Amino acid sequence: MMGRKKDEVKSLGKKEAKYIFDYAPEVLEAVQNKHAGRDYFVKFNCPEFTSLCPITNQPDFATIYISYIPDEKLVESKSLKLYLFSFRNHGDFHEDCVNIIMDDLIQLLDPKYIEVWGKFTPRGGISIDPYCNYGRPGTKYEEMANYRLMNHDLYPEKVDNR
Amino acid sequence: MMGRKKDEVKSLGKKEAKYIFDYAPEVLEAVQNKHAGRDYFVKFNCPEFTSLCPITNQPDFATIYISYIPDEKLVESKSLKLYLFSFRNHGDFHEDCVNIIMDDLIQLLDPKYIEVWGKFTPRGGISIDPYCNYGRPGTKYEEMANYRLMNHDLYPEKVDNR
Amino acid sequence: MMGRKKDEVKSLGKKEAKYIFDYAPEVLEAVQNKHAGRDYFVKFNCPEFTSLCPITNQPDFATIYISYIPDEKLVESKSLKLYLFSFRNHGDFHEDCVNIIMDDLIQLLDPKYIEVWGKFTPRGGISIDPYCNYGRPGTKYEEMANYRLMNHDLYPEKVDNR
Amino acid sequence: MMGRKKDEVKSLGKKEAKYIFDYAPEVLEAVQNKHAGRDYFVKFNCPEFTSLCPITNQPDFATIYISYIPDEKLVESKSLKLYLFSFRNHGDFHEDCVNIIMDDLIQLLDPKYIEVWGKFTPRGGISIDPYCNYGRPGTKYEEMANYRLMNHDLYPEKVDNR
Amino acid sequence: MMGRKKDEVKSLGKKEAKYIFDYAPEVLEAVQNKHAGRDYFVKFNCPEFTSLCPITNQPDFATIYISYIPDEKLVESKSLKLYLFSFRNHGDFHEDCVNIIMDDLIQLLDPKYIEVWGKFTPRGGISIDPYCNYGRPGTKYEEMANYRLMNHDLYPEKVDNR
Amino acid sequence: MMGRKKDEVKSLGKKEAKYIFDYAPEVLEAVQNKHAGRDYFVKFNCPEFTSLCPITNQPDFATIYISYIPDEKLVESKSLKLYLFSFRNHGDFHEDCVNIIMDDLIQLLDPKYIEVWGKFTPRGGISIDPYCNYGRPGTKYEEMANYRLMNHDLYPEKVDNR
Amino acid sequence: MMGRKKDEVKSLGKKEAKYIFDYAPEVLEAVQNKHAGRDYFVKFNCPEFTSLCPITNQPDFATIYISYIPDEKLVESKSLKLYLFSFRNHGDFHEDCVNIIMDDLIQLLDPKYIEVWGKFTPRGGISIDPYCNYGRPGTKYEEMANYRLMNHDLYPEKVDNR
Amino acid sequence: MMGRKKDEVKSLGKKEAKYIFDYAPEVLEAVQNKHAGRDYFVKFNCPEFTSLCPITNQPDFATIYISYIPDEKLVESKSLKLYLFSFRNHGDFHEDCVNIIMDDLIQLLDPKYIEVWGKFTPRGGISIDPYCNYGRPGTKYEEMANYRLMNHDLYPEKVDNR
Amino acid sequence: MMGRKKDEVKSLGKKEAKYIFDYAPEVLEAVQNKHAGRDYFVKFNCPEFTSLCPITNQPDFATIYISYIPDEKLVESKSLKLYLFSFRNHGDFHEDCVNIIMDDLIQLLDPKYIEVWGKFTPRGGISIDPYCNYGRPGTKYEEMANYRLMNHDLYPEKVDNR
Amino acid sequence: MMGRKKDEVKSLGKKEAKYIFDYAPEVLEAVQNKHAGRDYFVKFNCPEFTSLCPITNQPDFATIYISYIPDEKLVESKSLKLYLFSFRNHGDFHEDCVNIIMDDLIQLLDPKYIEVWGKFTPRGGISIDPYCNYGRPGTKYEEMANYRLMNHDLYPEKVDNR
Ligand SMILES: [Ca+2]
Ligand SMILES: [Ca+2]
Ligand SMILES: [Ca+2]
Ligand SMILES: [Ca+2]
Ligand SMILES: [Ca+2]
Ligand SMILES: [Ca+2]
Ligand SMILES: [Ca+2]
Ligand SMILES: [Ca+2]
Ligand SMILES: [Ca+2]
Ligand SMILES: [Ca+2]
Ligand SMILES: [Ca+2]
Ligand SMILES: [Ca+2]
Ligand SMILES: [Ca+2]
Ligand SMILES: [Ca+2]
Ligand SMILES: [Ca+2]
Ligand SMILES: [Ca+2]
Repeated sequence: MMGRKKDEVKSLGKKEAKYIFDYAPEVLEAVQNKHAGRDYFVKFNCPEFTSLCPITNQPDFATIYISYIPDEKLVESKSLKLYLFSFRNHGDFHEDCVNIIMDDLIQLLDPKYIEVWGKFTPRGGISIDPYCNYGRPGTKYEEMANYRLMNHDLYPEKVDNR
Repeated sequence: MMGRKKDEVKSLGKKEAKYIFDYAPEVLEAVQNKHAGRDYFVKFNCPEFTSLCPITNQPDFATIYISYIPDEKLVESKSLKLYLFSFRNHGDFHEDCVNIIMDDLIQLLDPKYIEVWGKFTPRGGISIDPYCNYGRPGTKYEEMANYRLMNHDLYPEKVDNR
Repeated sequence: MMGRKKDEVKSLGKKEAKYIFDYAPEVLEAVQNKHAGRDYFVKFNCPEFTSLCPITNQPDFATIYISYIPDEKLVESKSLKLYLFSFRNHGDFHEDCVNIIMDDLIQLLDPKYIEVWGKFTPRGGISIDPYCNYGRPGTKYEEMANYRLMNHDLYPEKVDNR
Repeated sequence: MMGRKKDEVKSLGKKEAKYIFDYAPEVLEAVQNKHAGRDYFVKFNCPEFTSLCPITNQPDFATIYISYIPDEKLVESKSLKLYLFSFRNHGDFHEDCVNIIMDDLIQLLDPKYIEVWGKFTPRGGISIDPYCNYGRPGTKYEEMANYRLMNHDLYPEKVDNR
Repeated sequence: MMGRKKDEVKSLGKKEAKYIFDYAPEVLEAVQNKHAGRDYFVKFNCPEFTSLCPITNQPDFATIYISYIPDEKLVESKSLKLYLFSFRNHGDFHEDCVNIIMDDLIQLLDPKYIEVWGKFTPRGGISIDPYCNYGRPGTKYEEMANYRLMNHDLYPEKVDNR
Repeated sequence: MMGRKKDEVKSLGKKEAKYIFDYAPEVLEAVQNKHAGRDYFVKFNCPEFTSLCPITNQPDFATIYISYIPDEKLVESKSLKLYLFSFRNHGDFHEDCVNIIMDDLIQLLDPKYIEVWGKFTPRGGISIDPYCNYGRPGTKYEEMANYRLMNHDLYPEKVDNR
Repeated sequence: MMGRKKDEVKSLGKKEAKYIFDYAPEVLEAVQNKHAGRDYFVKFNCPEFTSLCPITNQPDFATIYISYIPDEKLVESKSLKLYLFSFRNHGDFHEDCVNIIMDDLIQLLDPKYIEVWGKFTPRGGISIDPYCNYGRPGTKYEEMANYRLMNHDLYPEKVDNR
Repeated sequence: MMGRKKDEVKSLGKKEAKYIFDYAPEVLEAVQNKHAGRDYFVKFNCPEFTSLCPITNQPDFATIYISYIPDEKLVESKSLKLYLFSFRNHGDFHEDCVNIIMDDLIQLLDPKYIEVWGKFTPRGGISIDPYCNYGRPGTKYEEMANYRLMNHDLYPEKVDNR
Repeated sequence: MMGRKKDEVKSLGKKEAKYIFDYAPEVLEAVQNKHAGRDYFVKFNCPEFTSLCPITNQPDFATIYISYIPDEKLVESKSLKLYLFSFRNHGDFHEDCVNIIMDDLIQLLDPKYIEVWGKFTPRGGISIDPYCNYGRPGTKYEEMANYRLMNHDLYPEKVDNR
Repeated sequence: MMGRKKDEVKSLGKKEAKYIFDYAPEVLEAVQNKHAGRDYFVKFNCPEFTSLCPITNQPDFATIYISYIPDEKLVESKSLKLYLFSFRNHGDFHEDCVNIIMDDLIQLLDPKYIEVWGKFTPRGGISIDPYCNYGRPGTKYEEMANYRLMNHDLYPEKVDNR
């Protein structure tokens, strides 16, 4: 089987990306999924996410986990990086950020299944970890979303703020 | 999508909160859930919980994990901090604390689902970790609560009191 | 909601408990469960358990995890401590100890569900971890016991004897 | 309830066991299960297993996890130690070792359920972890074996060869 | 039961393997599964995988986990090592690599069930972990594949890029 | 050598200590050091320390490590517990707390050497860990204090606020 | 000894700080050191540092450890937070950032001793950790700086980019 | 070089040791050090130590680390085990236990250097870790003891009582 | 203080580097050290190093730690990446690789001090970790090199080949 | 600089080594040190060491760490593997094993400095970790050996026998 060719995606070859630091969902790009006949998962681990608190304007930090079953499209990973950068000077609640990221990726990819989990650093001694998921309505992936929500995080990780 | 505006919540902008150190459920505040059409989880990691033993008056310490699926309301996180502070000089059993916290949040939020897990530090070489949950009666969330209770903590964390 | 009062339990307030170091199930005490209308879990982490090998008389050491869904009664935690101390000079196999502890707590509490897991230190390079559970016969908790046994310990912890 | 007496098992009290270092299933001994009316698990953690590669004659090392639900018999732990020692100068593939160990214990104990998991150290940068299980045919334990195989190791442990 | 004999497999005894560093699925070899009557798992942990990025030609690194239920054939482990080496100077996307590896092993072994999980190191602050699986069509193993996909990675590991 | 007798210390045998929750150095008690001819260390690990922020009145949390070489006196451990409890509703900077604790123990014990290290939980994404030490002036312990300060914390522990 | 009073520092009581996101050393504030007669360490753990790469404009992330022996002044911790925020949209090399932070704190505090260690996340598979220190020239603290540099990081932490 | 012969030590070959559970220093035995011309360390890790609190009679638990440079004699390890067992029903302070253990081993072995470190589990939220050492008076080992005391435990381990 | 400008270094801005996969020390580039008046450390963590075994031609893997005190020059980090890539198809012993890397960086930078530590994955159950260092001859950095060699790795990390 | 050539060492290229399982120091081989003008360390991590107890004939297991500064010779790593294998059926005390290994390597290599640390698995709840070292007599390496012995293992690793 042949590997990918350089002209299949634009972002990776660009000389110097312009980094945008306020919410810019338009930077997201998709590439073709070569294994669309098979259901499989792709997970992105993104420990360098930062946004601003909409009330205090103070920086917030999180690790964002994005996991999805593609249909025809994969998200191109460099464009995902640019997209997450664009929250840098944008203000929103933790609960809103994970929902918005998932909405934008559904819009881009029309995936069979997707989930987004944000694990934020604490403010005032408490940290917040919102988790949302989605299965294409009317398909078995909708049931999958229900099932995974029902089984979500039965073992909260140990947290001591250090 | 626009971010949150500053006047949506009262607690975050307040100059100096008065901290109350005996059980004060009235400090809890809710904010609107902007994604009420979607079932998703919000988890709070609270490793700085302290209360008093009702028998010996000695301080107790715990990490409290609160996880819920909101309906129309989210708990405002700074008010949750103030609420948990209010147990500081209040005396109650470990088993009672987690049940009371869950009762107060059900009262405030009318959530679809909620669970509270307390992991206390040991006294006399034994530590106690109570866990309670709730699904709105008569809905699929009630089944969810049963399911999650049945699957609760099959892998107790390693504990050696050090 | 009011906290617990001091005269509800006898053990916690006693000046000096007499510690008994041979199997004494009679020291166990129960207190009223204030949340009996709700199914919830209470877990005890007991990393300071020691007994004697019935064959060699050599000391054995274990961490014992006890987890149960109370009905009308909670086990009072200080009395549980005294009970576990009473194995100190008692000789029995690892497999027997966990079964006996569970039998005594069923006798005391008539719980809806209970499980006991002992994780012993190695002898001759091998360590033994017995696990037993119980659901009240003829109720859904009996099914729960079957379910949890079927799902028990799919991920054995890493052990290297150091 | 009385503890175990010394003459119930032969191996523990023997002055000096003769250690046999080539495959000797005949050293395995069983003792009576005092709690045969109850389904419960016994797990052995055996991090000191070693055998020889049948092709290169080079020593192999593994941690073996054995977990079973006894019927009338328990495996006596010192005899299990002697049995595992007997692989020391025996040559076989990793996949074969775990199957043979399970076969010998089924032969000895006629257990309701049993599983054996070997985690070997790497050769050529790759490590191999075979896992087999068994439920008594025609009983619910056969279904249990299928269920546990289907759920086996969804979370492979982190391995970096150091 | 007799151990394996040296002439059963060719690769292990070879004096000096020629290492091939561009994609060479033909190096894969199979050996007979002696326990074909039993469903069991074999897992390979491969933390020394490296390939090239098809766009930038920059080296990529991953730990690859391969887990399968054999039918008549086992993959010979030294040939698997040679096969994975052959990606060293081959360029492909992370998502493609894991799918190709699984396709080649299905071709070689006709296994009942197989899954491949790649955990790559980050580029631009994001790491990608694709996971695919397969159950023989029309058998219970196909359902097993669906079940395991539905339950895949509910607990993403902690990642901080260090 | 005989063990300690019960009447050597007052605090351990007291029925019910009155817990004082504002700075009360007078609760500290000393006992005789039976090995005063030998220089040795005693360390206290105190992970349940809490005080109030003098500016915001918000609770602060820390683990306090106290380590000293006694001369004629040991600090009685239950009285140390009572003393540390007395910071519960007292307001002071992190830097001040560790200095005050050390001053009070010098006053009580006249130790040869002492050090106090506080590791606080973060506020605003930053945590503070003050460390002070003392050697009796004009003795080799003063040099020891200089030496240990010079070598202090060359390896800051990994901190990620979770 | 009395605790700190609210009017001793300005930053902590301010209603809403204006956050500045380009290098602003002027936000740093000092408070009086009440224990100036004693040499002791204060360490700040700052895992939420972010700046921009001066060449690519891409965000960089680091944990910054700052440790110093104060003379007359302590750095006020909220002002330190604001100062570190001010690197958010500022571009500089890793090696430059840690030197600049140390220069600014020397300017503010005239400390006896100070050190700054930055641990950055990887780019292109390599991470960079610069460390600088300073002792007041002509004093024993200058020797201390030499000594600590000579002993710096003999045990590099384990790093695998995940 | 020949290995050890069986009649060199008595304890290992004994059929059934009588275990003594009150302080019995007379059970300690020594064997000849075959490498007495070389200074080297022998360390014993003893995580299964238990004694009684002299005031409350409550069991205490500790890991004891013993490390020494032998002269003509080694402590025979099985006799050390018996000796440590003999504290099982003996009451003494933590600070006393480690000093007594060291005194008894000095008496038995006349070692060049020895140190004993006890790490006990917490009571009332505080754990105590006494450490003592000894170098033969008038030799370089006495300086070694001073040096090691001066450098003792600059990095207290993380303790959170769980 | 101004940040770095884009034209100060060539490698970071290049569109597409040509990656060279056989030993190419000429790709190394230096940039000016802006803080040459101060002795400070720069450490590179390089967990993605791979070379070939000169005897078997089999791939080797290592984490390389490089730490140095610059004089007038810093190594440009992207060029260091290219240089380490160039070992990909080059054959050499582990002991030789770390010495060669250090020699090349001395040649490039003329640093005051430098050290290189390689931690390789095991072959045949044994892993090799060579460490070399260098201080400019006739300066205090030469003594520093001796001192750091004498103190090297007193605490070997725990290794179990998994 | 040229890499190593294949004919420089005999062991690595051999088709099939004969593995010897009783103490065979004659299998050790040396190769030329190409960097003999520089003092540097080579460390071997050997977690797969096994021998027999000379009294009970029971297998013992250890991780052996060997670290040395070569003069003209390096130990060839495959021959070291064969040498360590040769302890497989050899009986000796832990203290003797590490001394013998060091003696044999001194004999082979005449190194400037060498140290050997064995960390054995527990028997009867106690594990033993002997450590010996050597510096060439009359050189600075002899002082180095004294220095490293004096600083040996100030931080015993956490051990809990699991
Ligand atoms: Ca933590
Ligand atoms: Ca422990
Ligand atoms: Ca372990
Ligand atoms: Ca352990
Ligand atoms: Ca590992
Ligand atoms: Ca990490
Ligand atoms: Ca982090
Ligand atoms: Ca952490
Ligand atoms: Ca890592
Ligand atoms: Ca790795
Ligand atoms: Ca802990
Ligand atoms: Ca904690
Ligand atoms: Ca712990
Ligand atoms: Ca191991
Ligand atoms: Ca490992
Ligand atoms: Ca333990």
